Amino acid sequence: MSAARLSSMSKEVNSESVLLCPLSMAAGPEQKLLCIFGTGDLGRSLGQRLLQTGYKVVYGSRRPHSCGPLPVGTRALSHGEAAQAAGLVFICIHRENYDFLETLAPQLKGKVLVDVSNNLRKNLYPEANAQYLQRLIPGAHVVKAFNTLSAWALQNGPSDASRQVYLCGNSAEAKQAVAETATKLGFTVLDRGSLSAARELEDFTLQLFPEWRLPLRLAIGLTAFFFFYLLIREIIYAYVEQGKDISFRIMVSLANKVFPIVSLIMLALCYLPGVIAGFLQLYRGTKYRRFPDWLDRWMLCRKQLGLLALAFASLHVLYTLIIPIRYYVRYRLSAHTILQIKENRTSEFDTAIAWRTDSYYSVGILGFGLYFLLGISSLPSVSNALSWREFSFIQSKLGYLTLFFCSLHTYLYGWKMFLNSSSYKWYTPPGYMLCLVVPSVVLALKVLLVLPCVDHTLTRIRQGWERTDPEDGCKRSLLT
Amino acid sequence: MSAARLSSMSKEVNSESVLLCPLSMAAGPEQKLLCIFGTGDLGRSLGQRLLQTGYKVVYGSRRPHSCGPLPVGTRALSHGEAAQAAGLVFICIHRENYDFLETLAPQLKGKVLVDVSNNLRKNLYPEANAQYLQRLIPGAHVVKAFNTLSAWALQNGPSDASRQVYLCGNSAEAKQAVAETATKLGFTVLDRGSLSAARELEDFTLQLFPEWRLPLRLAIGLTAFFFFYLLIREIIYAYVEQGKDISFRIMVSLANKVFPIVSLIMLALCYLPGVIAGFLQLYRGTKYRRFPDWLDRWMLCRKQLGLLALAFASLHVLYTLIIPIRYYVRYRLSAHTILQIKENRTSEFDTAIAWRTDSYYSVGILGFGLYFLLGISSLPSVSNALSWREFSFIQSKLGYLTLFFCSLHTYLYGWKMFLNSSSYKWYTPPGYMLCLVVPSVVLALKVLLVLPCVDHTLTRIRQGWERTDPEDGCKRSLLT
Amino acid sequence: MSAARLSSMSKEVNSESVLLCPLSMAAGPEQKLLCIFGTGDLGRSLGQRLLQTGYKVVYGSRRPHSCGPLPVGTRALSHGEAAQAAGLVFICIHRENYDFLETLAPQLKGKVLVDVSNNLRKNLYPEANAQYLQRLIPGAHVVKAFNTLSAWALQNGPSDASRQVYLCGNSAEAKQAVAETATKLGFTVLDRGSLSAARELEDFTLQLFPEWRLPLRLAIGLTAFFFFYLLIREIIYAYVEQGKDISFRIMVSLANKVFPIVSLIMLALCYLPGVIAGFLQLYRGTKYRRFPDWLDRWMLCRKQLGLLALAFASLHVLYTLIIPIRYYVRYRLSAHTILQIKENRTSEFDTAIAWRTDSYYSVGILGFGLYFLLGISSLPSVSNALSWREFSFIQSKLGYLTLFFCSLHTYLYGWKMFLNSSSYKWYTPPGYMLCLVVPSVVLALKVLLVLPCVDHTLTRIRQGWERTDPEDGCKRSLLT
Repeated sequence: MSAARLSSMSKEVNSESVLLCPLSMAAGPEQKLLCIFGTGDLGRSLGQRLLQTGYKVVYGSRRPHSCGPLPVGTRALSHGEAAQAAGLVFICIHRENYDFLETLAPQLKGKVLVDVSNNLRKNLYPEANAQYLQRLIPGAHVVKAFNTLSAWALQNGPSDASRQVYLCGNSAEAKQAVAETATKLGFTVLDRGSLSAARELEDFTLQLFPEWRLPLRLAIGLTAFFFFYLLIREIIYAYVEQGKDISFRIMVSLANKVFPIVSLIMLALCYLPGVIAGFLQLYRGTKYRRFPDWLDRWMLCRKQLGLLALAFASLHVLYTLIIPIRYYVRYRLSAHTILQIKENRTSEFDTAIAWRTDSYYSVGILGFGLYFLLGISSLPSVSNALSWREFSFIQSKLGYLTLFFCSLHTYLYGWKMFLNSSSYKWYTPPGYMLCLVVPSVVLALKVLLVLPCVDHTLTRIRQGWERTDPEDGCKRSLLT
Repeated sequence: MSAARLSSMSKEVNSESVLLCPLSMAAGPEQKLLCIFGTGDLGRSLGQRLLQTGYKVVYGSRRPHSCGPLPVGTRALSHGEAAQAAGLVFICIHRENYDFLETLAPQLKGKVLVDVSNNLRKNLYPEANAQYLQRLIPGAHVVKAFNTLSAWALQNGPSDASRQVYLCGNSAEAKQAVAETATKLGFTVLDRGSLSAARELEDFTLQLFPEWRLPLRLAIGLTAFFFFYLLIREIIYAYVEQGKDISFRIMVSLANKVFPIVSLIMLALCYLPGVIAGFLQLYRGTKYRRFPDWLDRWMLCRKQLGLLALAFASLHVLYTLIIPIRYYVRYRLSAHTILQIKENRTSEFDTAIAWRTDSYYSVGILGFGLYFLLGISSLPSVSNALSWREFSFIQSKLGYLTLFFCSLHTYLYGWKMFLNSSSYKWYTPPGYMLCLVVPSVVLALKVLLVLPCVDHTLTRIRQGWERTDPEDGCKRSLLT
Repeated sequence: MSAARLSSMSKEVNSESVLLCPLSMAAGPEQKLLCIFGTGDLGRSLGQRLLQTGYKVVYGSRRPHSCGPLPVGTRALSHGEAAQAAGLVFICIHRENYDFLETLAPQLKGKVLVDVSNNLRKNLYPEANAQYLQRLIPGAHVVKAFNTLSAWALQNGPSDASRQVYLCGNSAEAKQAVAETATKLGFTVLDRGSLSAARELEDFTLQLFPEWRLPLRLAIGLTAFFFFYLLIREIIYAYVEQGKDISFRIMVSLANKVFPIVSLIMLALCYLPGVIAGFLQLYRGTKYRRFPDWLDRWMLCRKQLGLLALAFASLHVLYTLIIPIRYYVRYRLSAHTILQIKENRTSEFDTAIAWRTDSYYSVGILGFGLYFLLGISSLPSVSNALSWREFSFIQSKLGYLTLFFCSLHTYLYGWKMFLNSSSYKWYTPPGYMLCLVVPSVVLALKVLLVLPCVDHTLTRIRQGWERTDPEDGCKRSLLT
């Protein structure tokens, strides 16, 4: 109707009610009859939901009289009878059993068939289920839809992320009929084009964290590298040079060095692509040229990078907080006290050390607090509740502040040891020095970008201004 | 169309459509007039929202001229006048004051009355409010709707979980009219059938965490049992056998034993029903027979069990981390050091102990980290953003890994003490041994289920294959 | 129309496509053509989404042949041609470039123009963009809409909070046309009235946490006050009276006093307005008189107050847990042990101290656990999933319990020191005493309110009963 209204309105304002009124008098939507082939979990969930939304439902079944409990108010017929009764048929059958549908081709001619099936693996069959169905019954209008929803979502109605129904098919009318049913069920419809997109829709449900793969690989790679680097520098070094077996340190001490190192590097890698993009736009003098592919892909996984970094930081916090209950630490502290008494010397309290270590802890806690805030604001329901300006304030301003605090925390940890040659065992720098390289570079570049003169130019570029081509008025007039 | 339908519907019934029809023909639904009886919070919120969505609103009031501030653009009439003006009347009045509506029966004849009321307690009245209203005005079409929404949700529009409007009523046309208004307000409509369902809808808002009751009772029961068990084994045992008063340990030491014990048992109880269901399906050779009721109920509260277990685990973490700042611990450590000096002996550093305790802490931290991840993925907005495969990966694969880590943490805590007879004070096993029983059973059964041969059969069963009844083709062809 | 289409389809089995075709030819929504002026990010996102929802799209561009990549299936025309083709034109151009539209006034006459633009700052221009557009092309029907959505939300469809489209305009028909398009895109429409509301909609996107301002200012103010108060009482006092430099304590010890103090005060300030409101209603004997403005504003920022208080409490937890790894603490503990040995005295273990400190920690942990639970239930997706009764149970009952636990934690911390004159350095009370004032008052008032006689009266008032004016039947009959 919306189309009818819109088009008629722009043409002339009045006559569409002539068409509408008698139609809507004839049969309210609650009389509409739909058919479902298959009485399994999905078929029953779908039928239940259709009933609640005001449809009538018949099931098509091979054994209409012994097919288990169906939703109250529906009935089961043979496939042929059920197909006769309705213009729209949901096929809630496994693809393996599609072949028998071929015999129903006459009854299904001209009907809209909704293929909701999924497969267990990718590339299990040479063609998409929906295309196979279309081939079996060429006279029907096959629409692929609803397959990305779980039986649960179908039965309980749409919730936040499972609101969208993707559909595709070759007949616009058939797609429209399915779209209207989906809209009535409370879903939002996204048309993905012709039936050739069915494979894409079927593969959609088999995805397993695709956007997390790159960040996860990076995290595993960095963790492995720093684990072996520190294993050599600390455990093996102590064994080779001093003959001491301190391998027990792997479980906590070493882990508590690897985790913060990886966390800080990954946090910096969240902000590096944004800085690179800024310089690229400055260099090119326009925002209308596409970024290189690697940069695009990098920018798309910043959220996942940041959340993994937060997970590592949280582990670092827990590993740090259990330090004083460790046997090794208690033993060492006690041994230190005993030694002082035996040698009858008292170490003076050093205010400088107290200042430094307390600052180090304090900055670390504040950094982690900000970090945690960033993580909370990444929760879908929280980020949805923020305006665009609020979201970019948190993720950009607070993000750089977090990076600054965490880097400062690490610098305070290193303190004077940067200049101390004994830090460089076997000529290798300690892990915390290595991990400061990327954050320092990111912060330095960011400082350059927020210098007033640079910032002014970049802001203008991001508003659509172009440096090089003053006569191209078209682009400058676009809304960003 | 909603306007067209509503007006056409009321045309057959009464005369106010004389006013409506030309209006709605002239220019769309925004001229549609609705009536609200009652000018309280709910009435005003509802009117505000209806106005924003493009409806016209009149209020019916006993004192149209002194009823406080109404939304701009509405006006208050007497009940009778207001009822004349519109075909659909929202009754935003307390049930206690329904009786006066009986006098308006002539004006309300043929109208759609939307009962939005709720009660303060269950079973306050012998019949549902909506049924009472229908009895008062038999000539009207009463529809129960919107009562599950707060005034806040009504005023601000639908948000994630408060999107659904449940409705019931005896007239399909009346329900359709209300459903269209609800849809226009942005809600999704769920039809619950005839007016006899009104009681159910009215009780719906009085629920207080129904799905949390069983897990909460279990948690309280387990906590109480282990509290008294450990109280006897530790505090009372020490008092009776050694004459020592260590009752101060109740506040932290005892609590920090009870919490992890309850947490681990409840985590294992999350995964036990799934394992039982697997074995039941294997034994029956089909997935089409219903599980026993107790198993169904158990499976439905797994999420709540897991979240409570996570809460207990979090308390365990906090109680553990404050150990080193406790007076008792500091006193004991200091006393230990003093004793060593006085007796002039030095305990050797034991690498084995360092390995064991550090592993114990490390495994515990990683287990808690995974546990926390499971908790985050249970947040509605996060779990909605996951595909079905991703959700089951986290809740199943990561879930069992968490259970394994937490059990290992407890085994490492026990270490050799399992074989030490002095652990069994008064012939009772320590708490951590008791709490390992259920997790160990669950993990052992799970290992059996993932053996390739068993897993293969179970997967086929879950895809709809049946062992016993090869000729029943109907069921096998259902989509799972 | 959906009903009309679907029902006609089911009536005659095979011939329904005959019926479908002409209908959808006549006015199928997928044939509807819309026009977009501007080919920037927003124009392209919008076009993509409109295509997916079944619209046809043409772009209007100054340089139709060189305007970069457009969504597949669309084409670019000159502005004039594009405007001719469609009845509804989205203006995705920066306001700075609106002036050229004046030349298109003849082609745009009678068209619906959707202004989606935003500005970079408030009050950049004397009139709203949409009003400026209307002035340029008086013959068109300008509707302000979609401007609160990001290009991301437009391209990917609505998600939880970005579901609502605000619109305003002077022509009801034009607004209706835009509303129908928005509804088809999956959004919920909120009509904000005439075009004079455009400025408000344009300013909407420039908001930066408006509801957080008051609580943030309060938090900063309280933090600053208590920081300087404690700085004087502890650091400067020690320096002046004892000549000791303990300034290093600022970083952790002082922070760990300021944070819990501010947290407790702010938590109490969350519950104070509710208590005041209760007494005000009791005093007035009615709930129908508006609260004073300051109370209203206070009540509206309770959630933000509580979340900030939780953030401060979390910092307090982290600062407390790092105590035992601080250099200062380790030094002092070791020095204490050494002193005991040198003076050859052993301090007796004091069970009373053990009880008190352990209770203090235990109550603090439980209070923080409840606090955290309150925080989780404030997450939009969690609070949406709760019924009204559940939400008020958590926020009220659990909230007061949290306040009680946190106050008790502080009382246990103070213990006997309240009566000890040495606590009052320079005649000032310690910080923890000051911070107990507000919570104690709130708890005492709350105890008064839940006394059966008071509670009964208040409940009746909140249900609409009024004490003073027995004849005013109108108000009493309103649903609360």
